[in-house]
Amino acid sequence: MNILLTGAGGFVGRELGRLLGGAGHALVGIDTDAGGIPAGIRAVAGDLADPAVRAEALGTGCDALIHLATVPGGAAEADPSASRRINVDAMYDLLVEASALKPGLRVVYASSIAVLGDPLPAQVDDATPLSPRMIYGGHKAMMEHAVAMFSNRGLIDGVTVRLPGILARPKGPSGMKSAFMSDLFHALRAGEVFTCPVSAAGSIWAQSVRQCARNFLHALTLDSGLMPPTRAVTLPALRISMADLVAEIARQCAVSPDLVRYAPDAALEAAFAAQPPLATPAAERAGFAHDGDLATLVSNALATI
Amino acid sequence: MNILLTGAGGFVGRELGRLLGGAGHALVGIDTDAGGIPAGIRAVAGDLADPAVRAEALGTGCDALIHLATVPGGAAEADPSASRRINVDAMYDLLVEASALKPGLRVVYASSIAVLGDPLPAQVDDATPLSPRMIYGGHKAMMEHAVAMFSNRGLIDGVTVRLPGILARPKGPSGMKSAFMSDLFHALRAGEVFTCPVSAAGSIWAQSVRQCARNFLHALTLDSGLMPPTRAVTLPALRISMADLVAEIARQCAVSPDLVRYAPDAALEAAFAAQPPLATPAAERAGFAHDGDLATLVSNALATI
Repeated sequence: MNILLTGAGGFVGRELGRLLGGAGHALVGIDTDAGGIPAGIRAVAGDLADPAVRAEALGTGCDALIHLATVPGGAAEADPSASRRINVDAMYDLLVEASALKPGLRVVYASSIAVLGDPLPAQVDDATPLSPRMIYGGHKAMMEHAVAMFSNRGLIDGVTVRLPGILARPKGPSGMKSAFMSDLFHALRAGEVFTCPVSAAGSIWAQSVRQCARNFLHALTLDSGLMPPTRAVTLPALRISMADLVAEIARQCAVSPDLVRYAPDAALEAAFAAQPPLATPAAERAGFAHDGDLATLVSNALATI
Repeated sequence: MNILLTGAGGFVGRELGRLLGGAGHALVGIDTDAGGIPAGIRAVAGDLADPAVRAEALGTGCDALIHLATVPGGAAEADPSASRRINVDAMYDLLVEASALKPGLRVVYASSIAVLGDPLPAQVDDATPLSPRMIYGGHKAMMEHAVAMFSNRGLIDGVTVRLPGILARPKGPSGMKSAFMSDLFHALRAGEVFTCPVSAAGSIWAQSVRQCARNFLHALTLDSGLMPPTRAVTLPALRISMADLVAEIARQCAVSPDLVRYAPDAALEAAFAAQPPLATPAAERAGFAHDGDLATLVSNALATI
């Protein structure tokens, strides 16, 4: 299958690109910088909002589109216009153009739990109404409806997956306010002290990048009749406390969990570490899964950093 | 209160403009053509997508925004780009500009039952997921999330109301595929035969334009804490069969219901006259209402055409 993968040089895109290439698919990858796109993928570098960049990427045909490219949460908050330009307008244009080329193509859209809003209600399940507060979540929510509409019209066959915290990112700036969760892995593996900006009791929804890539691979071919009418599911995730996460990383890295000090920031705690019990039956019915248990999540995450 | 009313020359806008003016508000009205805007409203004529038009309308201050202007359903379906330009892009720009001028202003947004999709599920209530199929409904749904996000950020204090069929429109082209319902009123009042493009058994959700205007007036000052987290409610509506509607209009106009012949068009029937039982407890808790009974709905509708 000819697959167009946007954000191919990103954290999830690189892992997914390798998985898709290994499964025999022909890939075209778009990213702002071709340098991060794995070998074996035809790389198109440029701005997704540039029609010429999209035309170049679509030029060799497209049987399916996996749309990961995004202005991430922290960057969107700092520059709402940039988020609107990429996360709404350019994506809409891409849907129009890809569906004109190949009507009914599978589109897998990476949305986010940010669509649910913050603070979150006391329990989140498939009936939780969307009420985004962050720019990122608002724009992702708008485009969930665009995916549903394009799908209901037969222009695309859309599958929207809302990503929880994905572990672990490479070192360095990501534009994601939640990047501290990944920094924790890097610090403990290096045996360094780490000041955690949320509390030990803070609870997060997490999935390893390896499991996340598997979920995208599944989304590529699943029967969309298994999806709800919105075409959107919140991906299954393990709900874990920071203290448990720290203990397990420390165990697997053979270091002391006491390397971690807690200095909670109220805003970060509210946005990323006050995640309530989560039920995702719709995603499970559609065949999506989390890592299974904390030890597997941590070993999966450590294997990819 | 200084109120900016978009679509002030339209069917609902004219009725609402008169009601708001009577309540002592100072109004600025935008429409593509100033001719339809009622006397007593400062009229701004032009394209809502033109920044100069929006700036002229906002120039005298704005304490609240009632956003009715839209590319309607049939016209949106015929020209999706025009719908995107007005129903998404221009509205988003207007929210940004109005909230910069008066952070936290009340915004009342006219959405549509088209966001629910078609065909509709066997029962519609406040838990029904949005799954638009029409361009109009897709774009309205996207902007419902924008209203929620702007509200959650404190930039606006948004109230989204989803309109059912509103009766009765003036004669003439409206761009609305559902206009046949209004044409029925005009024909029977004139004692003319009418070929109804949906079946006698077809069921519709309806509200008179007079009741609709009252609901907008209520939305202007209601405590938004009564709204759900999505900031959106489906307005209460009477669910009536075409045969009952015909009989009641005929009775009030003292003509025979046999003036109406039925020649159902499958697409129109599916889109507009197969509306299932409707429950709108969220809207009722927030103080919105339908006409009360069929006789009142019909007399309200006849009084305004």
